[in-house]
Amino acid sequence: MKGGFLLWARLVQPYELIKAKRDGGRLEPADIRAFIEAYTAGTVADYQMAAMCMAIFFRGMDSRELGAWARAMLESGEVLDLSDTPGVKVDKHSTGGVGDKVSLSLAPLAAACGVPVPMISGRGLGHTGGTLDKLESIPGFNVNLPTSEYRRLVREVNCCLIGQTAQVAPADKKLYALRDVTATVDCIPLIASSIMSKKLAEGIDALVLDVKVGSGAFMKRDEDARTLAKTMIGLGAEMGKKVVALLTDMDQPLGRKVGNALEVIEAVDMLRGNAPEDYTEVTYALTAEMLVLGKKAATVEEAREKLRKVVEDGSAVRKLKEIVQVQGGDPRSIDDYSLLPQAKATVDVVAPRDGFVTGIDTEGVGLAAVALGAGRQRTDSKIDPAVGFTLLKKSGESVKQGEPLVRVHYNDAAPLENVKARLLAAYRFGDVAPVARPLIRERVE
Amino acid sequence: MKGGFLLWARLVQPYELIKAKRDGGRLEPADIRAFIEAYTAGTVADYQMAAMCMAIFFRGMDSRELGAWARAMLESGEVLDLSDTPGVKVDKHSTGGVGDKVSLSLAPLAAACGVPVPMISGRGLGHTGGTLDKLESIPGFNVNLPTSEYRRLVREVNCCLIGQTAQVAPADKKLYALRDVTATVDCIPLIASSIMSKKLAEGIDALVLDVKVGSGAFMKRDEDARTLAKTMIGLGAEMGKKVVALLTDMDQPLGRKVGNALEVIEAVDMLRGNAPEDYTEVTYALTAEMLVLGKKAATVEEAREKLRKVVEDGSAVRKLKEIVQVQGGDPRSIDDYSLLPQAKATVDVVAPRDGFVTGIDTEGVGLAAVALGAGRQRTDSKIDPAVGFTLLKKSGESVKQGEPLVRVHYNDAAPLENVKARLLAAYRFGDVAPVARPLIRERVE
Repeated sequence: MKGGFLLWARLVQPYELIKAKRDGGRLEPADIRAFIEAYTAGTVADYQMAAMCMAIFFRGMDSRELGAWARAMLESGEVLDLSDTPGVKVDKHSTGGVGDKVSLSLAPLAAACGVPVPMISGRGLGHTGGTLDKLESIPGFNVNLPTSEYRRLVREVNCCLIGQTAQVAPADKKLYALRDVTATVDCIPLIASSIMSKKLAEGIDALVLDVKVGSGAFMKRDEDARTLAKTMIGLGAEMGKKVVALLTDMDQPLGRKVGNALEVIEAVDMLRGNAPEDYTEVTYALTAEMLVLGKKAATVEEAREKLRKVVEDGSAVRKLKEIVQVQGGDPRSIDDYSLLPQAKATVDVVAPRDGFVTGIDTEGVGLAAVALGAGRQRTDSKIDPAVGFTLLKKSGESVKQGEPLVRVHYNDAAPLENVKARLLAAYRFGDVAPVARPLIRERVE
Repeated sequence: MKGGFLLWARLVQPYELIKAKRDGGRLEPADIRAFIEAYTAGTVADYQMAAMCMAIFFRGMDSRELGAWARAMLESGEVLDLSDTPGVKVDKHSTGGVGDKVSLSLAPLAAACGVPVPMISGRGLGHTGGTLDKLESIPGFNVNLPTSEYRRLVREVNCCLIGQTAQVAPADKKLYALRDVTATVDCIPLIASSIMSKKLAEGIDALVLDVKVGSGAFMKRDEDARTLAKTMIGLGAEMGKKVVALLTDMDQPLGRKVGNALEVIEAVDMLRGNAPEDYTEVTYALTAEMLVLGKKAATVEEAREKLRKVVEDGSAVRKLKEIVQVQGGDPRSIDDYSLLPQAKATVDVVAPRDGFVTGIDTEGVGLAAVALGAGRQRTDSKIDPAVGFTLLKKSGESVKQGEPLVRVHYNDAAPLENVKARLLAAYRFGDVAPVARPLIRERVE
């Protein structure tokens, strides 16, 4: 099973590298590169990479190792070239949450303000939703465009929203699947290098990170979120990309809609200036950073002014319709929500007592959405784009016993009792309104 | 890739168990059993076991976890039943060293004294030799006997020396190969459970452990060797088996011969009372413990007396010839060494200076033997039974410049320069004789 030496320039066995990392040593960039290349080629086996990732979980990586690791993953595939699009190409990445439909409004907002937005997104997994699933609830919307079309749309429309292709960071694709089954997902250097290798393959010049913190985020604590943000910013700097991160609140779902088509509706509402304040504020804050990075505004204040303008004059909604149109979707659905998938029935979960909502277990809400069919537990699960929740009450709001808390939009009644129980268990009540958490917790540059 | 739930009584995912161990939790015996059963069956993948082993490397296992782990490995295969042989069946296990031919003389000595010795041995790997390879240098000797024959020979001859069958602890066989390529070999709970699961599958009642310490051993430090010994003794106790351990010196090769047929010769010499003192002493000490455990002597002093007697009256050599005969080997080779494989030529490595040998890098000598063809670097390497070394000088002995240090017995001249350079590099010299290390460093019960 030992498999002898690999055909590397330096004859270092995978075994020796795993052992070196296990024993707290620092790996040489050339060795890391060879290890990841051999893993991508299949010469380093999954079990060796699993042992390496667990050793990294315990020992970490210093910035030199991390840079080499991320670069090797990035360069395991195609790095898209968007140099034929003038201007500073800027994308946003979120670490994932519940009700996080920011990309759906942010991309057309930034594009309407003149920032080219090349955006490669993922699908929902576990308790979090994914932008691709939300986009696909728009009838006809195609997220699987060839690279040439992606490049053309960024140039001509200032935006293209697609899924990860097999050509982008294949090492990360393989590694992510492995980490997912070997308990090595929640490891900051591995998270940071995974995100950055994918994002830098898009052909961007700059990146805004939305690092979610709270009960619905992977990072439950500010300090972990801050470390992750700094790690990614460091990686970006090493590769010559400007990265700004906002730590934003995910201690309750963002906005009031959870579920794919429902979130598209809320996103379109936002572009019309008609969405919940928390969702609007987070979107504005992140998009303003993009405008500054993209040199379309000198300050975030000036950027916010521009954003308000493209909402008021309708050009933000028009940009979304244009994106939908060029990606094969039906732009009429943006004006007429009845053309989007709609659930057959609704039922309300009601408050069990008088008082205030003092908190929402956001992961619990996400898992209730999975149970309803809005999300997926496994990568091969089917989802129902129509189903989801409207959160009629959120943290800090007063409730009366029997008053509706959450409206459940459903097609299949079978999981309903389970879903309702999960939602009720996710809500916490008290006699006093809780102190509001700041939405934008911190800015890291 | 997640693969859903396993069909266990309790629905615990492998992922959750890896994560629990990673985060310092204690695993339930039932979960450990299910995990190892699923690994043996292939439901838990190699990459998940690799991640688990690395997590165990960092977090360890408490005695309850370790007991469950070893028992699950033991019960992954057949546990041989030797109840038709009367008396206390006792085996010895060595953690491995260079020139360690103790089993070759210990087994006939104990058997000649009336202790049934069921012994399942391994092959050499890396810098250490293996009993099976040494036995196979005796023309015709067959280490691959069926279980029924093994059982018969233990009953009728008081001894049988075979290799591990596919039926014995298959989980350990699979796991050992995996650990070997994922840098999780040198982890005390995994070593201890691997050894004990194999040994307890032999059908023994008691076990003597030879835990080697020093530059040629896996355990370089006394404290690690002691921890390993205590861990194995604890595992034995949990399974109702009496285990005694001796920590013995492996800071230089044992005896003066290294190489398969050469070590057989030295072992036979010992049974005739004519072998180097260190090898004789370690063998007597270990065999005496076997006699006490096997109730053939009340004390180790009484046991030693019996050993001296079976050497003097020739019954020890006769027992070896009987074993060789019943296992298909040529018993004449025990009297006439020219019937054993013999190297075509010899060459001497000479002392570069006057003085004393102050130390020998024993792993270096073992690796020189591998380079010469006496050992194997990979499990599928071929070995040459005839080649090896005679150590003409050992630690503490005085040398003159140009005087032979090591006689190299070789067939192929190609690796000779490499071998000689390795041997010379392994010897350390000084002006003063070093303080002798005790051979039997410690007894642990």
